[in-house]
Amino acid sequence: MHSTGASRDVLLVGMTSARVPLAEEYLAVRQTSLHLCAGFTVEDHCLQAMADASPAKWHLAHTTWFFETFLLSNFTEGYHPFHPAFRSLFNSYYNAVGERPLRALRHVLSRPGLEEVHAYRDYVDEAMVHFLSQDIPQAALDLVLLGINHEQQHQELIITDVKNGLAASPLRPAYRTSVHLDPQPASVVDLAWRSFEPCIYGLGFEGEDFAFDNERPRHQVYLDAFRLASRLVSNGEYLEFMHDGGYSNASLWFSDGWDCVRNNQWSAPQYWEQHDGEWWHYTIDGMKPVDSAQPVCHVSYYEADAYARWAGARLPAEFEWEVAAQSCPVTGNFLESGDLHPRTASDAAGLSQMYGDVWEWTASPYVAYPGFKPAAGTVGEYNGKFMCNQMVLRGGSCATPQSHIRATYRNFFPPHARWQFMGVRLANGN
Amino acid sequence: MHSTGASRDVLLVGMTSARVPLAEEYLAVRQTSLHLCAGFTVEDHCLQAMADASPAKWHLAHTTWFFETFLLSNFTEGYHPFHPAFRSLFNSYYNAVGERPLRALRHVLSRPGLEEVHAYRDYVDEAMVHFLSQDIPQAALDLVLLGINHEQQHQELIITDVKNGLAASPLRPAYRTSVHLDPQPASVVDLAWRSFEPCIYGLGFEGEDFAFDNERPRHQVYLDAFRLASRLVSNGEYLEFMHDGGYSNASLWFSDGWDCVRNNQWSAPQYWEQHDGEWWHYTIDGMKPVDSAQPVCHVSYYEADAYARWAGARLPAEFEWEVAAQSCPVTGNFLESGDLHPRTASDAAGLSQMYGDVWEWTASPYVAYPGFKPAAGTVGEYNGKFMCNQMVLRGGSCATPQSHIRATYRNFFPPHARWQFMGVRLANGN
Amino acid sequence: MHSTGASRDVLLVGMTSARVPLAEEYLAVRQTSLHLCAGFTVEDHCLQAMADASPAKWHLAHTTWFFETFLLSNFTEGYHPFHPAFRSLFNSYYNAVGERPLRALRHVLSRPGLEEVHAYRDYVDEAMVHFLSQDIPQAALDLVLLGINHEQQHQELIITDVKNGLAASPLRPAYRTSVHLDPQPASVVDLAWRSFEPCIYGLGFEGEDFAFDNERPRHQVYLDAFRLASRLVSNGEYLEFMHDGGYSNASLWFSDGWDCVRNNQWSAPQYWEQHDGEWWHYTIDGMKPVDSAQPVCHVSYYEADAYARWAGARLPAEFEWEVAAQSCPVTGNFLESGDLHPRTASDAAGLSQMYGDVWEWTASPYVAYPGFKPAAGTVGEYNGKFMCNQMVLRGGSCATPQSHIRATYRNFFPPHARWQFMGVRLANGN
Amino acid sequence: MHSTGASRDVLLVGMTSARVPLAEEYLAVRQTSLHLCAGFTVEDHCLQAMADASPAKWHLAHTTWFFETFLLSNFTEGYHPFHPAFRSLFNSYYNAVGERPLRALRHVLSRPGLEEVHAYRDYVDEAMVHFLSQDIPQAALDLVLLGINHEQQHQELIITDVKNGLAASPLRPAYRTSVHLDPQPASVVDLAWRSFEPCIYGLGFEGEDFAFDNERPRHQVYLDAFRLASRLVSNGEYLEFMHDGGYSNASLWFSDGWDCVRNNQWSAPQYWEQHDGEWWHYTIDGMKPVDSAQPVCHVSYYEADAYARWAGARLPAEFEWEVAAQSCPVTGNFLESGDLHPRTASDAAGLSQMYGDVWEWTASPYVAYPGFKPAAGTVGEYNGKFMCNQMVLRGGSCATPQSHIRATYRNFFPPHARWQFMGVRLANGN
Repeated sequence: MHSTGASRDVLLVGMTSARVPLAEEYLAVRQTSLHLCAGFTVEDHCLQAMADASPAKWHLAHTTWFFETFLLSNFTEGYHPFHPAFRSLFNSYYNAVGERPLRALRHVLSRPGLEEVHAYRDYVDEAMVHFLSQDIPQAALDLVLLGINHEQQHQELIITDVKNGLAASPLRPAYRTSVHLDPQPASVVDLAWRSFEPCIYGLGFEGEDFAFDNERPRHQVYLDAFRLASRLVSNGEYLEFMHDGGYSNASLWFSDGWDCVRNNQWSAPQYWEQHDGEWWHYTIDGMKPVDSAQPVCHVSYYEADAYARWAGARLPAEFEWEVAAQSCPVTGNFLESGDLHPRTASDAAGLSQMYGDVWEWTASPYVAYPGFKPAAGTVGEYNGKFMCNQMVLRGGSCATPQSHIRATYRNFFPPHARWQFMGVRLANGN
Repeated sequence: MHSTGASRDVLLVGMTSARVPLAEEYLAVRQTSLHLCAGFTVEDHCLQAMADASPAKWHLAHTTWFFETFLLSNFTEGYHPFHPAFRSLFNSYYNAVGERPLRALRHVLSRPGLEEVHAYRDYVDEAMVHFLSQDIPQAALDLVLLGINHEQQHQELIITDVKNGLAASPLRPAYRTSVHLDPQPASVVDLAWRSFEPCIYGLGFEGEDFAFDNERPRHQVYLDAFRLASRLVSNGEYLEFMHDGGYSNASLWFSDGWDCVRNNQWSAPQYWEQHDGEWWHYTIDGMKPVDSAQPVCHVSYYEADAYARWAGARLPAEFEWEVAAQSCPVTGNFLESGDLHPRTASDAAGLSQMYGDVWEWTASPYVAYPGFKPAAGTVGEYNGKFMCNQMVLRGGSCATPQSHIRATYRNFFPPHARWQFMGVRLANGN
Repeated sequence: MHSTGASRDVLLVGMTSARVPLAEEYLAVRQTSLHLCAGFTVEDHCLQAMADASPAKWHLAHTTWFFETFLLSNFTEGYHPFHPAFRSLFNSYYNAVGERPLRALRHVLSRPGLEEVHAYRDYVDEAMVHFLSQDIPQAALDLVLLGINHEQQHQELIITDVKNGLAASPLRPAYRTSVHLDPQPASVVDLAWRSFEPCIYGLGFEGEDFAFDNERPRHQVYLDAFRLASRLVSNGEYLEFMHDGGYSNASLWFSDGWDCVRNNQWSAPQYWEQHDGEWWHYTIDGMKPVDSAQPVCHVSYYEADAYARWAGARLPAEFEWEVAAQSCPVTGNFLESGDLHPRTASDAAGLSQMYGDVWEWTASPYVAYPGFKPAAGTVGEYNGKFMCNQMVLRGGSCATPQSHIRATYRNFFPPHARWQFMGVRLANGN
Repeated sequence: MHSTGASRDVLLVGMTSARVPLAEEYLAVRQTSLHLCAGFTVEDHCLQAMADASPAKWHLAHTTWFFETFLLSNFTEGYHPFHPAFRSLFNSYYNAVGERPLRALRHVLSRPGLEEVHAYRDYVDEAMVHFLSQDIPQAALDLVLLGINHEQQHQELIITDVKNGLAASPLRPAYRTSVHLDPQPASVVDLAWRSFEPCIYGLGFEGEDFAFDNERPRHQVYLDAFRLASRLVSNGEYLEFMHDGGYSNASLWFSDGWDCVRNNQWSAPQYWEQHDGEWWHYTIDGMKPVDSAQPVCHVSYYEADAYARWAGARLPAEFEWEVAAQSCPVTGNFLESGDLHPRTASDAAGLSQMYGDVWEWTASPYVAYPGFKPAAGTVGEYNGKFMCNQMVLRGGSCATPQSHIRATYRNFFPPHARWQFMGVRLANGN
């Protein structure tokens, strides 16, 4: 499939040519990971402020491990692993690969040091480029594409996890010292509603290009008429919910959400702090006043749902979102913009902000599509085993590589998670 | 609505006439609760071996509280509550009603004593019968039916919670000393597959009779072709899964399920114990050898799913189950049989055991139907706020009153729950 | 029995009079346990609001188990246990006797019922009386006395544990409906200081009478001069500490104590509640206004120590207390008074309230005396294995049988425990 | 006081002259801290594998904070703090200084980076040297000496905490690549018993030199005759305890100790692992076979006590140890040897290994001496508030600076702690 060329171009970071050899694509994505970490100190690479997040150094090593373990060790004869212990050391959650360190203690891996991890990357990259220059079987090609997409997912996590680690410091340090962000509109356009017809839709991924197993198979879904908000919910709108007592009104919350609010004493989105009556939030560029025009971010599913209920609306089902997204171009505020922060919605016909800015919580639990088949082999653990107790999010965020996202893409997190760039689009109807 | 008569007869316990006054229906259900507890000692009424379960005495009081709080206090002028503190004391989870005792400490309510709780029931019953003899508004009628169905739900919990409490004693005492259960077939009929056509189905409840808000509204769902197993999975089949290392094979489990298995050291269904190489299980009649022909029971969603995966099948979606159930009569092994234990499937054309015996785990997370509207007022907390992190079960069990169940009925529990009478029916196709 | 006086002599330390048959003594103590429970409902007998406390029914059975397990099963030929499972079921913490139920789930033992436990007591009592009518070896006599004292300890726990269980109910029910307590003085006498000389003292128990192994051996201790407060700290004095911000001033607390205060949000002694600006506390006779003249009670070691520091004093060492107590008669407000609540100190020369009212926290960790030897056999687990992480308390309380206490008696609890009748006597000097 | 010179020489690290200016002493100790970290990578400086341990970078900053907060900020006019946030950021536990980061999240402080912490040290050192060149008040001199001793305590923690962090890595890396340790004797000398007479001893610190407040005041203690083992318990002896089922014999353990063994599944000292039937342990130089002649190390108080009980002996009281140590020279295997590991006892008359090698658990809970007065001001929190729930250890270890230890020195840890260099000396008698 990948030899068809054009269809895969969309995966490339900053590339425009129609026929890019896979090795170039591989290297471009690998290079992006290092580029993202360029502003981190050695110590920043080790940050892990909670078990759900991982140190950047670990991300750099684990994505390398993926290629070494699933490609080089299986498909290249006589391959000599960089270090025999790394197979176990940088395993994330693959039971079939064997034991692995406790997730919460990934910050304890002071050895290998950052330089050795860089050397590990170089070593594997060299072997991969050589491997990719040969004639390789389809199964391997599939795994290379999976590995590239896997690395892109970890690029997003590098950003969100370092943000989480830096935010845990009382100093609230910015990760980069000077950056110029484009000025944003002072106010946000009015929210409008876009309508969709009842229909049996074909949804899910179909085609030759890369997609994760959880996007397949394409199947028929009947949807009643529905309406979707033209843009994301803004900080200003969310502040109204807060001022109206949203966090202390049990009737707006799921029972589990209400427990979560009280047990964690939530009274605002993650990273928000009130100083002298004003709300500030930690961004990757340090503490900033909350801009009421920008999209609300770092809210859990519980908060997204409570907000929607308060607003007299609801969250979209994942298929409603997908139906609407099919007609939108995959453009927006992605990792490539360098903002690493959502932008204020601009005036636009139709739907804006469907891609990029923030992942949009849907009302859909993450379950298998009818006829779902996990990928064969060890990588079958990639998606399928997480299809329980999580909710689907759609559309990518300001930390997602543009080439990584598409209308059928399904992200998923537990309903209490907040540290990703997560926000809210309202739906209505039914 | 309730005056339509015949349609509601199905709610009545042990009644056959076509037109039963609501007061009689009310009293019959109330009487059943007491009848279920007749074999309990005073101390058995106080058992609470885990936070999820409640003492029988609490169930007797809480169901009474429901009528006093939502009916008598709101609709009968000059009603004098039995005890001013009970409004708070026997509140289960209604935030709108106010504070309530910690769920895990319900066993601490030695006062009021059992006799006082009986007096409370009598007091409220008398007032209710008087109330029901009058002309009452529709909103109140709706609440009466809700209260009756609420009491039936707690009848099931009385059985499962006492079973849980008695099982926690090293003595594993039977709750009743002598009971004659009908002999069961020594072996179970072969499992066959029943096929269903792809179609847009109308699903969910529609009509004048009572149904919970979570069964509504009826809506269109497109289902692809599927097959459903003709009977429940048996203990013998589940033992094969166990013998084949089911509990130690990570690849069969959801990630959360695998954590659950290891953290709780699960190696068999709840209440199972191995003695001298033989499997026994605690039943409400004490320890019994596991009968390989009977349906497996007291398994979690995680176990049900892992079993299905091992068996090369899957769990049904809730709508698949409902489509199939629409053509089955609501008959089976219910609370009324007195067995309080699932029975071996008998040979039958079509589908057997769809109702009664054990609740059947579906692969469907418990979410609102399109257009779902919670009931108005405080009872809006009844169902809607639990629509997160739970899975749907269908069909009722050997502890469900027959008149309480129907094809559209949705029960729900978290995926780790096992103490209800929960079992497995396989599905296939897609 | 205990009103006859002479019959209790054998239990009294330092008394020489009379000869009461051991069987009478045995029966009198056994009868007292039942007498204490006479006011409890069947449900009250099952109360266990925290793992540290046990249901009264369990206390009645466990004390019986002690005689059956250590006496009847070992010393009477052909003894047939009342129920084979009770050996394990009512074991408290004796590893040498084997497995036992989880402490926190003692409330789950609905079976055996209270009547069966009473029958168990009768059965064992009959066998014991027969046994005691014979010529029995010294080792058995020692165990009988240990068993009698063991039962007295559980008498105190019956009171404190039921109090704890009833207090956990939102109803705060009194355990008895009408009781006449003697009126108490409206104010408390001034606190005075009694002085003691530096000396090498002989401390610990020596003699033929019964004493626990942890009171032995008598040994030499050098004490510098010290002063002891003439009476217990009163509620009024403790309220001054509270009003002065005692619970929010970290400098008054041990580090662990400060953590305990914050984690549990302590702001007053256990069972205290503020209503309309006034302090009330739960007593075994229900909620009562806090009487400022009465001794403060239900404070932890942390609170006792913080109070003493705030007052510019300190807690006594256990040997300082013992030196002082040697000259005091063993009189005071004990279980026999029936108050089950501490009384206001009366004017007296010397030291008042040294015995009874409340156990007095000392500054001494509970460790073995030089040359300590645990009792031989299984009962060696009685005291020795707890000599870590606990503090010594002295003097008995209003729930202690008078015949049970003496100057050398060492009670012990972890520093955070509050549910016993525990209070404060100040020391000074050095 | 410090100007008396000779008496303080013993405090100096690697210095031999009789009269060392305080500034030189200060700088020598400060230099030693950096010297200890010289072999750590930047990432090693950030290691924190459990809440009780701290990253080396934090130790380097916190010891600097001590001088800045208690000396420079209070005693030097116009002192400008290095960074305004550090006052809070590097506070360990001083409530009087204010808020501070969560102890368990010290590893999250990626900023300030190591270089900035080094700059912080330089900045404070320069100001301190200037300050020490002036005429300074006695209160400040006392704090300087406290700060120097405080830094020495953290030098030991730098070693034990990094060891703990490296050991948590599956790679078990050595912190230094090549080190030459002197060969040790293949076998250990026989254990002999040294006897001491009953007497009233004067114990605790008295004099002009530096000592912590918890060593004061000197006071009289009566001790009965006792015997002390001539050397530490060896690995070989401890292995006998293990082979004899020590870890599975409840009767050898305190109740809390037994719970600790089972809850943590302890079956050997910390850092021990069995490979192919042989015991290895992690040392700061990586995994090594356990040398049966060397002293056992990294055992908790619970294990030390259980071992002693098994051996038919007991642990010494802290005063027994101090009486014996008064006659021993303060020589041994200290931090200065560079081994960072205990050495095999050599043949010697009297008592060997009293100082250095491993801290020796005593049977004495850590409590205040009669007449104890905490140091005035904020540093009064240094010792006093920890005098609860901890046990005293004596004698220093292979990670203790030689000048830091003395006969009256009291170290203290909770009974479950094992990560310090902690071992066992037996006592007997009474």
